[in-house]
Amino acid sequence: MLEELKQKVLEANLQLPEYGLVTFTWGNVSGIDREKGLVVIKPSGVAYSELKADDLVVLDLDGTIVEGDLRPSSDTPTHLALYKAFKDIGGVVHTHSPWATSWAQAKRSIPALGTTHADYYYGEIPVTRALSQQEIELAYELETGNVIIETFEKLNLDPKAMPGVLVGGHAPFNWGKDAHEAVHNAVVLEEVAKMALHSFQLNPNVEPLDQYLLDKHYLRKHGPNAYYGQK
Amino acid sequence: MLEELKQKVLEANLQLPEYGLVTFTWGNVSGIDREKGLVVIKPSGVAYSELKADDLVVLDLDGTIVEGDLRPSSDTPTHLALYKAFKDIGGVVHTHSPWATSWAQAKRSIPALGTTHADYYYGEIPVTRALSQQEIELAYELETGNVIIETFEKLNLDPKAMPGVLVGGHAPFNWGKDAHEAVHNAVVLEEVAKMALHSFQLNPNVEPLDQYLLDKHYLRKHGPNAYYGQK
Amino acid sequence: MLEELKQKVLEANLQLPEYGLVTFTWGNVSGIDREKGLVVIKPSGVAYSELKADDLVVLDLDGTIVEGDLRPSSDTPTHLALYKAFKDIGGVVHTHSPWATSWAQAKRSIPALGTTHADYYYGEIPVTRALSQQEIELAYELETGNVIIETFEKLNLDPKAMPGVLVGGHAPFNWGKDAHEAVHNAVVLEEVAKMALHSFQLNPNVEPLDQYLLDKHYLRKHGPNAYYGQK
Amino acid sequence: MLEELKQKVLEANLQLPEYGLVTFTWGNVSGIDREKGLVVIKPSGVAYSELKADDLVVLDLDGTIVEGDLRPSSDTPTHLALYKAFKDIGGVVHTHSPWATSWAQAKRSIPALGTTHADYYYGEIPVTRALSQQEIELAYELETGNVIIETFEKLNLDPKAMPGVLVGGHAPFNWGKDAHEAVHNAVVLEEVAKMALHSFQLNPNVEPLDQYLLDKHYLRKHGPNAYYGQK
Repeated sequence: MLEELKQKVLEANLQLPEYGLVTFTWGNVSGIDREKGLVVIKPSGVAYSELKADDLVVLDLDGTIVEGDLRPSSDTPTHLALYKAFKDIGGVVHTHSPWATSWAQAKRSIPALGTTHADYYYGEIPVTRALSQQEIELAYELETGNVIIETFEKLNLDPKAMPGVLVGGHAPFNWGKDAHEAVHNAVVLEEVAKMALHSFQLNPNVEPLDQYLLDKHYLRKHGPNAYYGQK
Repeated sequence: MLEELKQKVLEANLQLPEYGLVTFTWGNVSGIDREKGLVVIKPSGVAYSELKADDLVVLDLDGTIVEGDLRPSSDTPTHLALYKAFKDIGGVVHTHSPWATSWAQAKRSIPALGTTHADYYYGEIPVTRALSQQEIELAYELETGNVIIETFEKLNLDPKAMPGVLVGGHAPFNWGKDAHEAVHNAVVLEEVAKMALHSFQLNPNVEPLDQYLLDKHYLRKHGPNAYYGQK
Repeated sequence: MLEELKQKVLEANLQLPEYGLVTFTWGNVSGIDREKGLVVIKPSGVAYSELKADDLVVLDLDGTIVEGDLRPSSDTPTHLALYKAFKDIGGVVHTHSPWATSWAQAKRSIPALGTTHADYYYGEIPVTRALSQQEIELAYELETGNVIIETFEKLNLDPKAMPGVLVGGHAPFNWGKDAHEAVHNAVVLEEVAKMALHSFQLNPNVEPLDQYLLDKHYLRKHGPNAYYGQK
Repeated sequence: MLEELKQKVLEANLQLPEYGLVTFTWGNVSGIDREKGLVVIKPSGVAYSELKADDLVVLDLDGTIVEGDLRPSSDTPTHLALYKAFKDIGGVVHTHSPWATSWAQAKRSIPALGTTHADYYYGEIPVTRALSQQEIELAYELETGNVIIETFEKLNLDPKAMPGVLVGGHAPFNWGKDAHEAVHNAVVLEEVAKMALHSFQLNPNVEPLDQYLLDKHYLRKHGPNAYYGQK
C-alpha cells in the first residue's frame, strides 16, 4: 500500500546523508496521505545505506501501525502531533544537522539577517522552551510535538510561512507540503544557521532585516504574486 | 544565436556548484556581447544539474527578451544595471556563497588583510547601504543594481580593480572581463571572506595591509608591469 | 591467530580516514580478546591506505608481542592500561580529530548541551589534568592511560556510560564494547565537540541539559528500557 | 635533466590540491639537487590539472634559468633565498592555505598548544615582521626570503626543528628534507592552525604545552631516540 508515497519518503530520507544533514541514523523523514489519514515514516535506527521502501512503516494518526515489520522512528509521536496540528503540511523531517543544532543547544532563535533566510522563512525561526520533568518522563516525544505547537500558537506563527523550528537543547524539525519540500527546508535552515552564526561573530549587534525587505523576498517566492522560478 | 557566448555562460554557471558557491539554485551568471548589446543569462529557478545552453535567455540591455522560452533570473535587472554602468565588464555573477554572505548580513565591508585579497581586489571590498522601503517596493532588483553603482561612485572605485561588492543584508555580486572571470572572482571573494573572518577572530584589531604591499601584489598580477603567470 | 578480531580491528582502523577523523597516521584502533587476554593493535606509522590485517600486532596485556613483524602503535601502553582498568570494554581508539582535539588543547571538558551528546555520553566528557615532568619522562604513554583512569575514579565515572575522554593538551581517546563501537563513539565525540563549540559562541552562558532530559535520552538508547532501534 | 627530481617535485605540487591547500594556482613547490646546486620549481600561474614534469623550470641558486620554456613561479627568489640560508633543506612549499593564512593575516605566531603541533614543530611557529616600503618596492620576493631568515636568526630557531613560518600579512612557507616532506609539513601546519584557533576560542587564556611535554612529543618522532614509526 501507498507505494508511491513510500518511494517519495524513501528518496527524501536518502537526501539527508546526501546533503550532509545526518551522521549515522540521526534523522528521519515522514510523509502523509491526508485522504487516507496514513503516515509513512522511517524505521528506527536503520542505516540509510540499507534502507528500502519496504522497510518504511505505515501508521494512522493515532500511532497504530497499519503496515511494516520494523519499529517506527522513536520520534514518531512528534511527527504525528505536527500532522494533527498543522493541517496543511505533507512531510516532516527531523535531523541533528550541526549548525541548526548548535543554535538549538544555545537556546537561541535565529533572526532573519539576510535574504537567504527571508526567501524561505518569514521571520525569526523560533526555539522552544525547555520541557518540564513531567513532560519528559510521561510522554517525551509527544510533548516535543506539543511544545512546538505551543510555540507556534504563542508567537502566532503560520507553519506554512515558518516551515521549521529549533527544539531547545535538542535539534531542528522541519516540514513542507511534502517530504521532499520538508528536506529542502532543512537544507535551507542549515545554511541559514551557519551564516547567521558567522554574521553575529562579525557584528554582535547586527539587526534583523527591515520588514519590507523580508516581505519582498518572501513574497517574491511565495503566494499569488511570486515571480521567482518557472510557473 | 550567440552560441559561443551561451556555451561560456553555461560553463560559468556550472562552475558555481563545482566550487561550492551555491546551494540549490541560489546563483546566476550572465555574459554580454558588447557589440550586439545582448546579454545571456541563466533562467530563474532551474537546477544546475538540468541546465542546458538552450535554456539560457537572451535579452537586450532594456530587458526585452530576444530569445528563450524560460523566464530569466529574477535578478536580471541588477545584471543589466551593472552592464550599463560598468562599461568594461563582460560577465556578472550573483551567489549566496556562505562566507561572503555572512559579511553582507553583518553589513561589514572586508578590509584587505592579506596578499590573497590584494592579488584580486585593490582595497576594501565595499558593502552597500540598506535600500529604502520605496526602492524595495517599486523596483527591487533594479535598485539593487543602482545601490551598487552608487556605492562605487561615492567611494570612487574602479569596477575593474574592485570586481565585487557585498549587498548589505543580502549577498555578493561579482564581475569580470567575461563570465568565467566573474566566477573566478567570486571564488576568490569567498576564500578572502573566510580568512578575513578568522583573522579578525584571532586579532580583532588587525590593520589592513600597508598601501605599498597592496600595490605590489595587485600590480604584480594586473596592468602593464604584471609579472605573474605566463604571457 | 585471532583472524576474525584482526579483520574487525582492520576495518575499524580504516573507518578513521573514512569518517575524517585522521590526517596521515594520526590515529590507532585496537581490540581485545578477553578470553585469551590478547590485544590486536595497529602498527606504528603505517599509512591507512597500505594497512593489511597481517600488519596488525598481537600483544598480551603486559605488552609482550605475541605475533607481528612490525612495531605496535607508540600509544600501545595507553591502550593496555585502559583494557586492564576498564574490564567491560572491548575496543579502544585514539585520534587527533580536530574538534575534540581543540577542546583537549583548551583544557576544557565538554558539558552535555544537547540530546546528541546525551544519546551517547551520560554527562560531561572530562578532560584530564596535565602530566608531571616525571610522569612524562619515565613512562609517558603508560601514564597517559593512568591519568585517564585517575580522572574516571575521581569523578566516579562509569566507562560504559562515558565512553571517551579528552587528554589535556593532547587529544581524545574513546572506547566501546568492541573496536567498531569505539570508532562510532569517536565520530559522535567529534560531532558533539563541534556543535558545543558553536553553541558556546552563540551563548557563552549556556547551561547543560536538565538532568531528566539527559536521563531520558541516554536511557532511550541504553539499558533494559531502551526503545531506540530494532531489537 | 634531473628527471627523478622533476617527477618528485611534480608529485609534491599535485598534492597541494589533493590536500585542499590551494585554490586555483595559489601555491608552488620546489626541490633542490644539492650536489648540482640546481632547483626545480613550478612554473608561474599554470593550473595543477595541466601541470606536467616538462613544465617545471630548472634554475641555479642565482636564479639563472638552466632549463624550461616557462617562467618560474614569481615566488622563486624566496625559495632560492631559503635554500641558500637553510643548508639542510631539500624542498620548499608556499601556499595560501586558509587556516595558516588567517594567522599570518592576524600577524600572530602559533603557540604549541598540543601534541599534534609538538610532533612536528618544536615550539611556537613564528610570524615575520612587516616588510618596509623599500624592501617591497626593490626586491619583494627576495626580501620575503630575507625576512624569514632574519626571523629565524633573531629567534635562534633551527629550520629543521621549525619547518615553517607565517609571513605576516601574506601566507605560510614550509620546507623539509625534500619536496614531499615540505608538503607534509604544510598539511600539518594547516591542521595545527585550525585547531589552535578553535582552542583559543574555547579558552582565550590557554597556555602553551609544558616544555617537557613538547620535548617528549618532538623527540618521540625526531632524532636518535625517536621511537615512532617503523625503522
